[in-house]
Amino acid sequence: MRIELLTTGTELLLGTTQNTHGAWLGQELFKLGLRIQRQVTVPDGPAVEAAMADAVEEADVLIVTGGLGPTSDDLTRESIAAVLGLEMVEDELALRTLLAFFAQRGKVMADANRKQAMVPVGADVLPNANGTAPGLYLPPRLSGGRNCAVFLLPGPPSELYPMVQGEVLPRLKALSGLEVVPAMLEMRFVGVGESDFHQGVDEELTGIAGLEVGYCARLGEVDLRLVGTEEAIAAGREIALREFAAELVSEDGATLEEAVVRLLAAQGKTVATAESCTGGLIANRITDVSGSSEVFRYGYVTYANEAKRDLLGVRWEDLEEHGAVSEPVARQMAEGALRNADADVAVAVTGIAGPTGGSKEKPVGTVFIAVAVKGGETRVVRQLHPRSRVSFKRAVSQAALDLVRREVA
Amino acid sequence: MRIELLTTGTELLLGTTQNTHGAWLGQELFKLGLRIQRQVTVPDGPAVEAAMADAVEEADVLIVTGGLGPTSDDLTRESIAAVLGLEMVEDELALRTLLAFFAQRGKVMADANRKQAMVPVGADVLPNANGTAPGLYLPPRLSGGRNCAVFLLPGPPSELYPMVQGEVLPRLKALSGLEVVPAMLEMRFVGVGESDFHQGVDEELTGIAGLEVGYCARLGEVDLRLVGTEEAIAAGREIALREFAAELVSEDGATLEEAVVRLLAAQGKTVATAESCTGGLIANRITDVSGSSEVFRYGYVTYANEAKRDLLGVRWEDLEEHGAVSEPVARQMAEGALRNADADVAVAVTGIAGPTGGSKEKPVGTVFIAVAVKGGETRVVRQLHPRSRVSFKRAVSQAALDLVRREVA
Repeated sequence: MRIELLTTGTELLLGTTQNTHGAWLGQELFKLGLRIQRQVTVPDGPAVEAAMADAVEEADVLIVTGGLGPTSDDLTRESIAAVLGLEMVEDELALRTLLAFFAQRGKVMADANRKQAMVPVGADVLPNANGTAPGLYLPPRLSGGRNCAVFLLPGPPSELYPMVQGEVLPRLKALSGLEVVPAMLEMRFVGVGESDFHQGVDEELTGIAGLEVGYCARLGEVDLRLVGTEEAIAAGREIALREFAAELVSEDGATLEEAVVRLLAAQGKTVATAESCTGGLIANRITDVSGSSEVFRYGYVTYANEAKRDLLGVRWEDLEEHGAVSEPVARQMAEGALRNADADVAVAVTGIAGPTGGSKEKPVGTVFIAVAVKGGETRVVRQLHPRSRVSFKRAVSQAALDLVRREVA
Repeated sequence: MRIELLTTGTELLLGTTQNTHGAWLGQELFKLGLRIQRQVTVPDGPAVEAAMADAVEEADVLIVTGGLGPTSDDLTRESIAAVLGLEMVEDELALRTLLAFFAQRGKVMADANRKQAMVPVGADVLPNANGTAPGLYLPPRLSGGRNCAVFLLPGPPSELYPMVQGEVLPRLKALSGLEVVPAMLEMRFVGVGESDFHQGVDEELTGIAGLEVGYCARLGEVDLRLVGTEEAIAAGREIALREFAAELVSEDGATLEEAVVRLLAAQGKTVATAESCTGGLIANRITDVSGSSEVFRYGYVTYANEAKRDLLGVRWEDLEEHGAVSEPVARQMAEGALRNADADVAVAVTGIAGPTGGSKEKPVGTVFIAVAVKGGETRVVRQLHPRSRVSFKRAVSQAALDLVRREVA
């Protein structure tokens, strides 16, 4: 069953409003084993009718969002009627619902709203408890030989979401006639790239019958998406774990920082942060996780050398001799944070975010990351992330959190 | 000039990744007086070629994002070559750049990456300093009679954004042949919302002949975009400043944190941060700004009460009597940070990020923000931001940075 989504709205293409309908609907449909094959976004106005005419030729189901309001640029009702050659009539149920909506709020309905009760002949009115715009469902027979079912839905998420769940999904399920919903597993890996999968296991994975394999790479992490039968997913998972078990962060969509907080909480341990070049980003990511106060108590943002000395006890001679971006300074930062915060684990970073401050020996992007653990050895790694300032900070925070994860895994 | 955007990626339609390219590109193009007329999203695979074939018939410019990676589902290079009937060749510059990218990171390039150096004959390679995938530009003549210019760009924003700004916008400007790019002024305001403008000045602004007025609202800030003749913009600017001069943060796209760093640097002052509920976000935002090391030296992330006492000298009795989220604790945090960091200004926040920890008196979302200045009075404000945890942190950081800005403005 080919499903297309048409999102309408000038503001979506001007970029003043983020278009979130596609991602949300995609997730809802996937739960039924259905997918959106194409999403098109056009501005309000005549482009809507052209896009509809195009879509009903190809699709089995067309879902349209937006353009059901009372103003002059709200044209989806008229447009679909024109495309399918249907008359418009005033729908009694829609009108009664509209009047009730205003009455309930102690308001009188404006004349402009009356057009929201006009529907193409034969369409089902989908009630909207959260706004003035009723939705519409045009069953396949209304599109003649094209046999395309059409849903017209309101744009505001507070109206769209309940209408999809209450009215659209049950109809889609019936239309699709699907008995079995395919399973999906999303595995998140940190410290490997998409190309490592391609070299390592992609051929094996894609060779598994009944398995669809997808990747989504972000800075310093990659999601492996396995879709198919339970058996195929289990087989794919085994192959991925054979090569990259140490890099696996989560299998439930959890972020790296969520995984770190969970691991620490499960062991009753605390972590302290000592940040120079990341400037608070590592602490910020940890505290994005609900419940992080159980495992995170002290963070030091020691941007100046004096701060490294005063707050973490880094020796001034080492700062002068080796420079702030050096192995001994990273080590002393981590050990100072561990001691002063009385933590179980401490992570420290010191590097050159740029764009200035690099040298031949230590170019922009150089970073030392240290992890100290109570009663254990301190480990220090040197890395190079020659990126824009903000990307550098993100990449370093990723590497630092992953070192903590591996330390407590 | 008709511009279409094709965003590719199965994850966009499955909803596992939010599609943000359209909104960002829409804003960038608008600055040149250009608009995206249609955005289409399709999954990786053969749908990409079909969508490209469709688009080059209609559009003058086709911008494609995603699908330039090294794996088997990355097909945009091959697809556009097939659509336009072009041969693929290995590009020397692209290959050298790829090899250098890996060499710089001390890695050996995987064989799979080699395909990223294959380009359709006649295409320009757009360098990518932030990833392995070079972009491609196919000038209109390559599409034969269809006369459609095609850009193939990488998906990750950290790679896409600099490439658009450095390589794509200048070419679009040349292609559009617009002699007079309409002037634009973007005024950023913090501490007022879009509805304040609608109530206050929108009618006056939209009444100015030759002026197009747009708003872009984000959490705790709103951009007013004025496009038109120099005179119309000047008239609009005057009206906006009449009402909201104190809320104006920048007129050159500078972020709030950039404005704060500039103001401090111009006065040779330093700021220290003492954060509880924001967990390092304020320090992180300040250190996102290049040159922030001049004005920011010490940051304290005092998540636990002990940290507030040990690092900032907050009295234990006050923590016990008033609770960590209280006026006296916020005040002592700011004054302690000012003293211990020997800073000119210090900002402190303590609040309840949630989702748990609220009470009737201090519900989730409550925050106290304090600003202390050398030789001046400490100011403490209480605010309520009942939002999700991450939005709460963002809103509080926004309010805190804005208080610092007003203090040093």
